[in-house]
Amino acid sequence: MVRARSEERRAEILRAALEVIAERGYRGATLGSVAERVGLTQQGLLYYFPTKEALLVAVLEERDRWDTSGGRDREGWRVDLLESLVEYNAMRPGIVQTFSALLGESVTDGHPARTFFTERYAQVRANMADVLRLEFGDRLPGGLTPEQAAPLLTAVMDGLQYQWLLDPSAVDMPSAFRDFLRLLRGGGDA
Amino acid sequence: MVRARSEERRAEILRAALEVIAERGYRGATLGSVAERVGLTQQGLLYYFPTKEALLVAVLEERDRWDTSGGRDREGWRVDLLESLVEYNAMRPGIVQTFSALLGESVTDGHPARTFFTERYAQVRANMADVLRLEFGDRLPGGLTPEQAAPLLTAVMDGLQYQWLLDPSAVDMPSAFRDFLRLLRGGGDA
Repeated sequence: MVRARSEERRAEILRAALEVIAERGYRGATLGSVAERVGLTQQGLLYYFPTKEALLVAVLEERDRWDTSGGRDREGWRVDLLESLVEYNAMRPGIVQTFSALLGESVTDGHPARTFFTERYAQVRANMADVLRLEFGDRLPGGLTPEQAAPLLTAVMDGLQYQWLLDPSAVDMPSAFRDFLRLLRGGGDA
Repeated sequence: MVRARSEERRAEILRAALEVIAERGYRGATLGSVAERVGLTQQGLLYYFPTKEALLVAVLEERDRWDTSGGRDREGWRVDLLESLVEYNAMRPGIVQTFSALLGESVTDGHPARTFFTERYAQVRANMADVLRLEFGDRLPGGLTPEQAAPLLTAVMDGLQYQWLLDPSAVDMPSAFRDFLRLLRGGGDA
């Protein structure tokens, strides 16, 4: 019972941290502002997350749990599930904003999320190559190998998120992503 | 003579600001750290740029001057010049780092670069559509219209920059961008 309540409190803190990072970025976020949002003192927050970096790591791990539920099924990732993931992302701008802000910050010197993102992108590119190989074999209709297409698929997802966050009325993210899949599939009518 | 020296000093300050933003992001950058890097007091810096935001705007305008020199000629943008721009960017990680960090931060609430990036992306998508129409007409070999392909072209350039900044040994940015152009051109051998 105490354990369940503690888990709930952790989840609350993570939600608050996501919001604060979306609003101010990681460097602009303070433990005090996260604590305030969940009605804890800063000392109380430190019981759950002893440092700001520990909280960031937990936020990033939480992201992976979401992505796992959104982009893959029991057998792994599939191209049509990626389409659903992008549609799902278009309904949760707050979370996309948090991770787009963190990705941007992560390329600054010594940022605590840098290693996470570097390793994650290596993993994502490898997963994407597997997905593409499963669907298309060793050569996509558009002429690329899965290994050539994987960083492009990843780049399109990230790059579209920035354009969409800046101006959701100008960029239909799911539709643009489907256009890209059409390119990968070799174009023509669809 | 005084004017020339003042212009030189402004350029020095902009270079220093670029470095500091690359290292710490805009929110982490201080006018004091920029001033220190060029051997000015903070008061001295304020003579050239009265606020941190004014300095940011000048940095962003400077970016446009670079892009203008790198990606277009007297007649405007061309697809093969975009290829050269990406090659050029791969030789100047500091500047790419500054702008990737700023783009990331710009999606946080009330960021002073947000309007700049929103307007700039609308302009960039329009320019890209013009470039693509000039080369391919109203329908690209891969099946998309220039207006459909423009946000994807833009997204690939931005997204590849993050992957490359995080791990330059894993992502050959110019080569990946050429792969994408191959897709747009309808694939096949190239």
